Amino acid sequence: MQPELLFFSPTGADSLLLSLFIIFAAAKLSAEFFERIRQPPVVGEILAGIIIGPSVFKLIHHTELTHALSEMGVMLLLFTVGLEVNSRALFRVGTISLLVAVCGVVLPFIAGYFFMHYTGGNTAEAIFLGAALVATSVGITARVLSGMRMLSAKSSQIILGAAVIDDILGLLVLSIVTSIAKGQIKYGEILTTAAVSIGFTLFVALVGTKIVKRASPSLERLRIGHAYFVGGLILCLGFSVLATYIGMAAIVGAFLAGMALAEISEHTTMHNQTSAVMEFLVPFFFVGIGLQVDLSVFTDKQMVIMSLILTTIAIATKLLGCGAAALPLGLRAALQIGVGMMPRGEVGIIVAQLGLGMGVLSKASYAMVVFMAVATTLIAPPLLKLLYDERDKAASTSPESEIVEPEQPLSSM
Amino acid sequence: MQPELLFFSPTGADSLLLSLFIIFAAAKLSAEFFERIRQPPVVGEILAGIIIGPSVFKLIHHTELTHALSEMGVMLLLFTVGLEVNSRALFRVGTISLLVAVCGVVLPFIAGYFFMHYTGGNTAEAIFLGAALVATSVGITARVLSGMRMLSAKSSQIILGAAVIDDILGLLVLSIVTSIAKGQIKYGEILTTAAVSIGFTLFVALVGTKIVKRASPSLERLRIGHAYFVGGLILCLGFSVLATYIGMAAIVGAFLAGMALAEISEHTTMHNQTSAVMEFLVPFFFVGIGLQVDLSVFTDKQMVIMSLILTTIAIATKLLGCGAAALPLGLRAALQIGVGMMPRGEVGIIVAQLGLGMGVLSKASYAMVVFMAVATTLIAPPLLKLLYDERDKAASTSPESEIVEPEQPLSSM
Repeated sequence: MQPELLFFSPTGADSLLLSLFIIFAAAKLSAEFFERIRQPPVVGEILAGIIIGPSVFKLIHHTELTHALSEMGVMLLLFTVGLEVNSRALFRVGTISLLVAVCGVVLPFIAGYFFMHYTGGNTAEAIFLGAALVATSVGITARVLSGMRMLSAKSSQIILGAAVIDDILGLLVLSIVTSIAKGQIKYGEILTTAAVSIGFTLFVALVGTKIVKRASPSLERLRIGHAYFVGGLILCLGFSVLATYIGMAAIVGAFLAGMALAEISEHTTMHNQTSAVMEFLVPFFFVGIGLQVDLSVFTDKQMVIMSLILTTIAIATKLLGCGAAALPLGLRAALQIGVGMMPRGEVGIIVAQLGLGMGVLSKASYAMVVFMAVATTLIAPPLLKLLYDERDKAASTSPESEIVEPEQPLSSM
Repeated sequence: MQPELLFFSPTGADSLLLSLFIIFAAAKLSAEFFERIRQPPVVGEILAGIIIGPSVFKLIHHTELTHALSEMGVMLLLFTVGLEVNSRALFRVGTISLLVAVCGVVLPFIAGYFFMHYTGGNTAEAIFLGAALVATSVGITARVLSGMRMLSAKSSQIILGAAVIDDILGLLVLSIVTSIAKGQIKYGEILTTAAVSIGFTLFVALVGTKIVKRASPSLERLRIGHAYFVGGLILCLGFSVLATYIGMAAIVGAFLAGMALAEISEHTTMHNQTSAVMEFLVPFFFVGIGLQVDLSVFTDKQMVIMSLILTTIAIATKLLGCGAAALPLGLRAALQIGVGMMPRGEVGIIVAQLGLGMGVLSKASYAMVVFMAVATTLIAPPLLKLLYDERDKAASTSPESEIVEPEQPLSSM
């Protein structure tokens, strides 16, 4: 592709920079408004995307470029969150995270399957819709918890651990579902995918920190500027690529890279520098979710009702599934975890796009999934804000939790 | 454009993240090597682009995305440089900057014109080649000077001032040249362009700081996180867009935005946060220059000789033109300024692309200009490293210079 002639353009404005300006300024203006009405700014940024996007003002469309910036934004978000998470603390809640993830996958899948089945979809469409309800988009929850400085709370740790496991399970569900839709199930391939993704995650979580610690003196000997920051970014990008090779989400790789670096980042400026890059790029992720909404398909009344029912199912199944698994920790923690696992965000949309592309999902079902994904994403942040308070923060500062304290909050959310 | 399905891609790696990883890692590996052989890392990053690009390993091509990241990188670079520059200090060297810019535009243009004229080009091609020799790419010099903590030296201030004026002059030359190539000169349009671009620059430089100072208390009242950083980024993007509307380079807008914010940035974390974003994005700019090189056209011996002659002309004319204008400051300063104004970088390539697109420049002439642009860009940094030493730094710390001291160097170049 020939790049446009932008630097010396006697013919008018640079469309790339104009898009960046509109997206960034709209996101921050809206975030400021939401701060003032005491609502989570992340909701404002997603709504800004809907408003400037194809649904309302049609200023910006979701292009390859907004998609790329959005992906970079969420990658850096999960990397920065990883930098604040101690892998040992995460392992301590490993069993309950596993339980939360499994219940939060099984229940939505079954409910989604039967919803589609009883509303007239064929089997392939029903299992694909089930799959679209499975995967949690952890970016939203992570941003809200981090903004409230709640990442070190026990329930937050469980959510993060469950989100990683959820991604692996979601990947396996999608592999199986795709195989079924194509007419043949390749058990060998699915088993390999499972083994490799679990192996990668455990390897990084278990020995990543130790390897990084041993390698860090050689970073000191580098002559380029900001060696820790640069090294961290390379590890983040490398692990993200590796994760996608395995078939996992890039953000899981970024999160694991951050976690491996958590201990050595304490004594460097890496965390502040990464946060700055994240602050610049992450609005493109949230706005990007809004840009994918096309409200014009919701002129049909039945469509609206169906979408609302699907959204209710999506909310109820994660709340019940994840919440029930976390109930031994008390109702409060169970609710926090259930709500934290609720947003489907970009992950739900991507599964639906895959189904649409394969011809398995109808356009109407696709639109319903997008509605559900955005609605669950918009509902979770205000609920999280209500469910967390000073008690959770107090619990997090106990020495027992062994949490890496952030140098500064990711955001004043 | 439908974004690819990347988050859950059972079919393999994410090509976007893979490109980011390869570009960033190659740039930093090469920069580290150049630090070790005591050469400017920026040269290493450009060479990394040539090596991973179409000329050698063909791993990465210059696409819309690498172009977008490259443009964001150089915009943030000039914004960060602007944050370190005091507009009053820049005005103090205004007259000499103007002289440097004018001589550095006239001499290369005439020499380029006659070179093409005597080697068989028609008049239109000759004036376009002249125009391609005119514009300095200030990004390279700014990065090297900033890395050496030399931005506050008097000669550095003259270079920055001259680069802004050079951009306005280059824009006018290009408007005239384009009119001639199209067969009719629109004097009215050209005069308007001149008036608007000079007016914009003077307005921001003269009253920008005062307006920003008066507006900054309202930034304090914002509830979103990192209000200064966010506000700075919005101003940077906004001024970049405005500059392109006028017809100027986006980076001039970014530089002016930085300069307007220089004083209030002293007491905030804005500078550190902007530097971090810049450090992440700027390698895409330098690698991007390398990616645009296609060495395969240089199998023809005559082509190589012609390119070398053109490069010599490009070096000599800026050295003589800018140097002569700065001679009253002494030979050392004159050499520093002549070399600092030497790189043509992406600006030369873009003018050549414009000429190629209009059918005015032949493919051979285009290739020669790209060679010249990259060669001047590679030669300047090592020369700058030789020409600056502690004496220049000592001069910069005198209270008279009224320079905003950076909180930390942009790079350890």
